[in-house]
Amino acid sequence: MPLTPEQQAEIDDARSHTRQTIRATVPGMEAHLYKAHPVLDHGFVRVIDYMGDDQAITQAARVSYGKGTKKVTNDEGLIRYLMRHWHSTPFEMCEIKLHVKLPVFVARQWIRHRTANVNEYSARYSILDREFYIPAPDALNAQSTVNNQGRGEVLEGEEAARVLELLKADSTRAYDNYEAMLSQDGQKGLARELARMNLPANIYTQWYWKVDLHNLFHFLRLRADAHAQYEIRVYAEEMCKIVADWVPMAFGAFEDYRMGGVQLSGKAIDCVRRMLKGEEVTQETSGMSAGEWREFEEVLNGS
Amino acid sequence: MPLTPEQQAEIDDARSHTRQTIRATVPGMEAHLYKAHPVLDHGFVRVIDYMGDDQAITQAARVSYGKGTKKVTNDEGLIRYLMRHWHSTPFEMCEIKLHVKLPVFVARQWIRHRTANVNEYSARYSILDREFYIPAPDALNAQSTVNNQGRGEVLEGEEAARVLELLKADSTRAYDNYEAMLSQDGQKGLARELARMNLPANIYTQWYWKVDLHNLFHFLRLRADAHAQYEIRVYAEEMCKIVADWVPMAFGAFEDYRMGGVQLSGKAIDCVRRMLKGEEVTQETSGMSAGEWREFEEVLNGS
Amino acid sequence: MPLTPEQQAEIDDARSHTRQTIRATVPGMEAHLYKAHPVLDHGFVRVIDYMGDDQAITQAARVSYGKGTKKVTNDEGLIRYLMRHWHSTPFEMCEIKLHVKLPVFVARQWIRHRTANVNEYSARYSILDREFYIPAPDALNAQSTVNNQGRGEVLEGEEAARVLELLKADSTRAYDNYEAMLSQDGQKGLARELARMNLPANIYTQWYWKVDLHNLFHFLRLRADAHAQYEIRVYAEEMCKIVADWVPMAFGAFEDYRMGGVQLSGKAIDCVRRMLKGEEVTQETSGMSAGEWREFEEVLNGS
Amino acid sequence: MPLTPEQQAEIDDARSHTRQTIRATVPGMEAHLYKAHPVLDHGFVRVIDYMGDDQAITQAARVSYGKGTKKVTNDEGLIRYLMRHWHSTPFEMCEIKLHVKLPVFVARQWIRHRTANVNEYSARYSILDREFYIPAPDALNAQSTVNNQGRGEVLEGEEAARVLELLKADSTRAYDNYEAMLSQDGQKGLARELARMNLPANIYTQWYWKVDLHNLFHFLRLRADAHAQYEIRVYAEEMCKIVADWVPMAFGAFEDYRMGGVQLSGKAIDCVRRMLKGEEVTQETSGMSAGEWREFEEVLNGS
Repeated sequence: MPLTPEQQAEIDDARSHTRQTIRATVPGMEAHLYKAHPVLDHGFVRVIDYMGDDQAITQAARVSYGKGTKKVTNDEGLIRYLMRHWHSTPFEMCEIKLHVKLPVFVARQWIRHRTANVNEYSARYSILDREFYIPAPDALNAQSTVNNQGRGEVLEGEEAARVLELLKADSTRAYDNYEAMLSQDGQKGLARELARMNLPANIYTQWYWKVDLHNLFHFLRLRADAHAQYEIRVYAEEMCKIVADWVPMAFGAFEDYRMGGVQLSGKAIDCVRRMLKGEEVTQETSGMSAGEWREFEEVLNGS
Repeated sequence: MPLTPEQQAEIDDARSHTRQTIRATVPGMEAHLYKAHPVLDHGFVRVIDYMGDDQAITQAARVSYGKGTKKVTNDEGLIRYLMRHWHSTPFEMCEIKLHVKLPVFVARQWIRHRTANVNEYSARYSILDREFYIPAPDALNAQSTVNNQGRGEVLEGEEAARVLELLKADSTRAYDNYEAMLSQDGQKGLARELARMNLPANIYTQWYWKVDLHNLFHFLRLRADAHAQYEIRVYAEEMCKIVADWVPMAFGAFEDYRMGGVQLSGKAIDCVRRMLKGEEVTQETSGMSAGEWREFEEVLNGS
Repeated sequence: MPLTPEQQAEIDDARSHTRQTIRATVPGMEAHLYKAHPVLDHGFVRVIDYMGDDQAITQAARVSYGKGTKKVTNDEGLIRYLMRHWHSTPFEMCEIKLHVKLPVFVARQWIRHRTANVNEYSARYSILDREFYIPAPDALNAQSTVNNQGRGEVLEGEEAARVLELLKADSTRAYDNYEAMLSQDGQKGLARELARMNLPANIYTQWYWKVDLHNLFHFLRLRADAHAQYEIRVYAEEMCKIVADWVPMAFGAFEDYRMGGVQLSGKAIDCVRRMLKGEEVTQETSGMSAGEWREFEEVLNGS
Repeated sequence: MPLTPEQQAEIDDARSHTRQTIRATVPGMEAHLYKAHPVLDHGFVRVIDYMGDDQAITQAARVSYGKGTKKVTNDEGLIRYLMRHWHSTPFEMCEIKLHVKLPVFVARQWIRHRTANVNEYSARYSILDREFYIPAPDALNAQSTVNNQGRGEVLEGEEAARVLELLKADSTRAYDNYEAMLSQDGQKGLARELARMNLPANIYTQWYWKVDLHNLFHFLRLRADAHAQYEIRVYAEEMCKIVADWVPMAFGAFEDYRMGGVQLSGKAIDCVRRMLKGEEVTQETSGMSAGEWREFEEVLNGS
């Protein structure tokens, strides 16, 4: 359970104050506001604020393109057109602010997305809580034998038990010693900014993260992808559900053109054209390397 | 008058739809929403949306600094502390979206602030309106005799009249010919993306501009400054009034520490210390160049 | 002729000083350095400096991926892999600095690429030169009848002559009056920051523009594209030639995967799969809108 | 000793290839290139490449400000003027690429500077080395009793010994278990992307980090400051020495106006003016809060 009664009370309190506004509002997002959506064993994603809706995208596009876009009376058609043709600036007109609790090793991947605003809990100022990510049994995988940066089959039996035991024991010991070093009981107590160095990467941190919709889509395309590490993917998937409630038209276009879409090289689309004319194309006649050809076949097979 | 009856009707309509939200709202900003604040002869600034308030800043700071900041129970004290110590990320948690109508030469300065989102009216797609900035008589200045990039005294009499006449006549002729080249009456009509090149830099354009509060403060510090060009400064000043209504505590800290503050070099603060001990310091004994010393004296005199 | 004898002498001088370095150097870029590549009637692109080469990309990738990438002994294979899988950060390790002279309306499009460093000639400080872009006859097109933001067939005969005459006359008059307003001969002289507003968008400006290779590729993909406005495309095309000499492997991958590649939506790739299995797919059975289907057919036909 | 013989051989090899270039070169930087400057117990900073020199700054400024700046014949005077007046873009025209080895908790602070390019060693792909930061005895401090995010006096005697023992033992055990979980000897072996979560924040990582001079100065102002955490400050100080050799004029201006300079609020400069006129100003009559007054007195006392 990621929330303390105190935290739940804060959420309930925040949700109880209804105000009037003449800004764009989205009922689906009002229902999400402040609530903690659990992710992993102690993590969560919460919507703290949002700006704009689907219409904010078309409104901005119509400022850019003026009367020319008035003909496209259909908002959804315009949004799909913008997505298809990589017109990114109208999507930047929507903004979302999230409160996320996540393991440090996930935070380290996440922060590489630079076009966002972040306020992270500071372990120089404050003492971190004793909360560590310990994988569920079905998320405890062996190293992939084909992919240097992926995982393979699920560990089982004794090996799984041994790994879980090690992760738990090392987390516990590291935190015990963190506390022991910080303690001012009979000693001076180590500085917090130093003591934190003893904590492993599966400890939880938290931050406020604010991003525009265009950059959020970029994040989701990479992190909700099947090749992303499971532990960040589950955050991205939870965020996808939220975005679907926030800007359903834009999210639909994103799913079709980005998540479900594929990029074909000049060589690959040339092969497709030849195949559609009935030519039998092989790797040898494709001009592609073995690796490219394998990926190309996967695209054609939909695997 | 910058607004057509059609535009005014759109604003009235937008302002008439009250919705319920549990997000942070600011009554002072609700009063501004959608209204056009006139700037220059045809320009305006309108608030289209906003995210966050003063509390959103301290809330983010408290996520970063955790329990350590709970002692600073006073939100204003915490905001002033953050501003004084250049903690920029909490201010990034507020966001504003503006609709601005402005002359192209002002837009060219404005766009140099890169950390913002922009959707500008496209003269490739659409035809620009016949609206040009013609300075008011008290904004028609001679080149400064002391500052390469500034203006000096106001032009008067015949010279002023001549300049105004030239600006008006050239604008009118340029637009007449723009229309003539575009016309498809008895001819093919030049492409809009080409015809626009005939239009001078005092024609008005418009855009949606979205920015976080930290970057907005940076913009305002440079553009509301006395050394900024008058034609962008009036926009910045109008925005200052809006921001004062949006986040009054943050704006107060910004005024004291940024707009009203001064930066002293190591040499300058050393001189101040010596002067406070009673030493008579001159340029020769200051270690400063003539230019630095003159600026230093201006700071001490408050001029 | 874009260069004055004085400018040519500066270039010759800059090219005459050979120094020793142990940094990565690229002979193909040394040959380009400082030279002005003419673009349009008065514009140019010049390489002022560069950092890195193809190996700088793989070197950075190997820092990221460590021993795992050592197996890919082939630099070109690794670069193609990185491009294919959207690994952008290794490409950011190369940097280029250009000096560009370009019409203001081109500069206004260009500057929308925010992730770059820019120093533009300031018309507040200095007086602009009397140089205007006047399209060559084969670049003087009518508005497209099918594309709101494109151009159609070339103007001919009297209409072309009339347009060229108007562009020339208005440029000349605008500049004459710019000078007349600035003049301090018998009058105070209007401030430069004001006088510039009379100048049309086809006047030339210039800037130093510095960008990393990843963001440069993004710029080139959009601006060297057939849908880009001709007047910016010619700059992009000139830059493509330079980049091909700088990082030939990366540029080859860019050409294949970005410039020559296509993005297919989930619906589109599904149709391809069905077609390859022999199904006759029509717009009705594709799930696509009429516009999407038309673009899809263009992709399949290679038009 | 941070370098293996293999690494030293690579550096020697890289330094042995002299090439000819007509780009700007800086002898002081050529002397630094590729060499590892040791920082902390296992870290280093190495210059991999650089672009530009002091003249590249003034050259860019002169493009911006044109003939107006030619009067300032003195490059150093112009650079100081640009720094004093916050003209940041000319400083962006210089770029540096560093290879840095650093503890993860330092990397987590460092990465918050978003305007830079980074390629970090990936612990998903590769196995991290067994190298941990263990503070030297004089860098093992107690929590500050006055500053929530600082450290106080050095730990001594038994407490110091106990802390060092804990840090070493936990690092060793964590790494032993990391290896045990990864091992494919008699078991499948945990995925690297999972096993890494057991490693504490004092393990070393490494990255290539590329940044322009303006943003580097911003980094150095914050991280070479006396309030920065010691473990990142030593990196910043090492980088300051490198930058002083690279762009000595710009670094001199940076030291005087940024590192050695102070920012005074409107209230503070008003107090200075009153004090210089002979008025006795106290906190009560200053308009400042107790905290501000204390900081103001520190500035005046130079402490």
